Amino acid sequence: MIIREKEPENLEFPFSTLDGYLVPNERFYVRSHFATPTIDARTYKLRIEGAVERPLEIGYDELRSLGREKATALLECAGNSRVFLTPKVKGVAWELGAVGTAEWTGVPLAAVLKRAKLKDSAVDIVLEGADSGEIKDEPKAPRILPFARSLPRAKALGHEILLAYQMNGTELPTAHGYPVRAVVPGWYAVASVKWLTRIIALEKPFSGFHQTIDYSYWTQDHGLPTLVPVTEIQVKSEIARPEFHEVVPANTVYRVHGAAWTGESEISRVEVSTNGGASWQPARLADKSRRHAWRLWEYSWRTPANRTRVTLMSRATDKTGRTQPLMHDRQRGAYMVNMVLPIDVDVR
Amino acid sequence: MIIREKEPENLEFPFSTLDGYLVPNERFYVRSHFATPTIDARTYKLRIEGAVERPLEIGYDELRSLGREKATALLECAGNSRVFLTPKVKGVAWELGAVGTAEWTGVPLAAVLKRAKLKDSAVDIVLEGADSGEIKDEPKAPRILPFARSLPRAKALGHEILLAYQMNGTELPTAHGYPVRAVVPGWYAVASVKWLTRIIALEKPFSGFHQTIDYSYWTQDHGLPTLVPVTEIQVKSEIARPEFHEVVPANTVYRVHGAAWTGESEISRVEVSTNGGASWQPARLADKSRRHAWRLWEYSWRTPANRTRVTLMSRATDKTGRTQPLMHDRQRGAYMVNMVLPIDVDVR
Repeated sequence: MIIREKEPENLEFPFSTLDGYLVPNERFYVRSHFATPTIDARTYKLRIEGAVERPLEIGYDELRSLGREKATALLECAGNSRVFLTPKVKGVAWELGAVGTAEWTGVPLAAVLKRAKLKDSAVDIVLEGADSGEIKDEPKAPRILPFARSLPRAKALGHEILLAYQMNGTELPTAHGYPVRAVVPGWYAVASVKWLTRIIALEKPFSGFHQTIDYSYWTQDHGLPTLVPVTEIQVKSEIARPEFHEVVPANTVYRVHGAAWTGESEISRVEVSTNGGASWQPARLADKSRRHAWRLWEYSWRTPANRTRVTLMSRATDKTGRTQPLMHDRQRGAYMVNMVLPIDVDVR
Repeated sequence: MIIREKEPENLEFPFSTLDGYLVPNERFYVRSHFATPTIDARTYKLRIEGAVERPLEIGYDELRSLGREKATALLECAGNSRVFLTPKVKGVAWELGAVGTAEWTGVPLAAVLKRAKLKDSAVDIVLEGADSGEIKDEPKAPRILPFARSLPRAKALGHEILLAYQMNGTELPTAHGYPVRAVVPGWYAVASVKWLTRIIALEKPFSGFHQTIDYSYWTQDHGLPTLVPVTEIQVKSEIARPEFHEVVPANTVYRVHGAAWTGESEISRVEVSTNGGASWQPARLADKSRRHAWRLWEYSWRTPANRTRVTLMSRATDKTGRTQPLMHDRQRGAYMVNMVLPIDVDVR
């Protein structure tokens, strides 16, 4: 793992080591906002409150007894690949590896909301973690606050969102939210709240620190500059090998490979350029298209005969026709970095 | 007028000169966020758009022909009295005079929304001014944006909100929003958008810069730290005379006087302390209680016989029982400063 920040713990999956469809738990990237809380499953309680007819407190064993759904889903940090932005932006300097696909097992959030009898007046469902801490950069923010993020009612009631207690077939690791985390497929991982201890149904949209100030970006609504939370994952592909500044043998066939993903759609095409974007060739998609997970791809590259520097690129397109842009949309600030990422390599 | 900022123009009414119920236009405080726009009433258009069945463009004469309602209403800047806060906070350093009562003449906003056939799906009504400019302090914000602020549907449909074209019986002065401004009685004046040129009905709450980042504060909702826009004016009184560090004759009767106001209620009581808050005596309320305007008050103070320093205080209570606090609520940051304001004077 690449250490991006020691405390709180922010660890990156070295993307060049990608060698399978699922990323093993011990190599899955870790994004933490505050110190990792230690929770005892024997005393753990998930509280469901706010605009519900029947507020609940559910223990760990009871929660597990409510369902055992499986979902293969990709999580990507909204700031993944931020290190490629120039000029440099604030935030953890992720390269390519704040992303991964895992198999999650848990109870649908919808089942828990149904059990608590969600009121018709509830419009936003807040997920709160047991992690909390100080906000130093924002003088206006409360000194100490918990990590919390919301889902609009319709999204929260989709059957695909899990309260996961297993990751790749074993108990959720501490760094990944033990004993229970949310998994919100198709959305940037900020929504997939770890160490989940409270669900609050609100009658108006939530406007918390990590909802409205952090993990938000500017867009236009009727020509009005408007701040919106980061939500759906954008179409993207990344090259695992060769890696940045790798030395590649001349005059051979090199297996360029990587992964591609999107939000509420499926990947339909990945193309590779070996000349800095002047022309593009189709890559071979290695596995079946699967919503909310990534698709591995490869491309057999006949390397040049002579010593040279080559800029490799990959570009993904999804079934809705969305394609990776060549430039980052500046309005998105330090988030949703899905532009084509050039990888320079040296042919020897 | 006290110049607090030259460009953009921020001018304070010297509150010690309070000498009548209405503050004359040329002495009414001016709060501007950007350079003052120059608008020609002959070419002026107010656009009403977004979630309306019938988008409209209304010229100045047409707008005036739609109604002629009068409202006596107080405007107070949400940052008024901020200079009394210690430690010092960011923002224009207003003392006591970013407040005033005027008589406004205009068309009810509700009438215009009805004419445009507001859709049932509209939940938030954005008022946009012709003033726009650069946001320098917030790196995340768009470089240039217009001043815009919203009202929830129910508030916007209240008959009391005017699109005002007159102030104290004459045409609206340029600094006060010529040719048309909103007047939202009972709410901090940030809602009373000047140089109003566009009304946009939105189907979700507006999250613009001056709505969500600026003029907002932290509160708790189900124990969740939540950012909310500044809205209702808080109960408050201010002493006009004597002013801070005024020299007052010993052993005489001095007329302490000032004004008191509140948001969605009426002032029921003002008390004065001449011993730094140790005891309080009732002040005489000088005029009839009137919702959304201030109430002038006075108190005949028998000054001490000897040279001394005295701390005067006034404290207002409204009909809902809300009273001015002694301390500022830190959660409100640099806004809604309604604590009791001590005025030190020297008796000679």
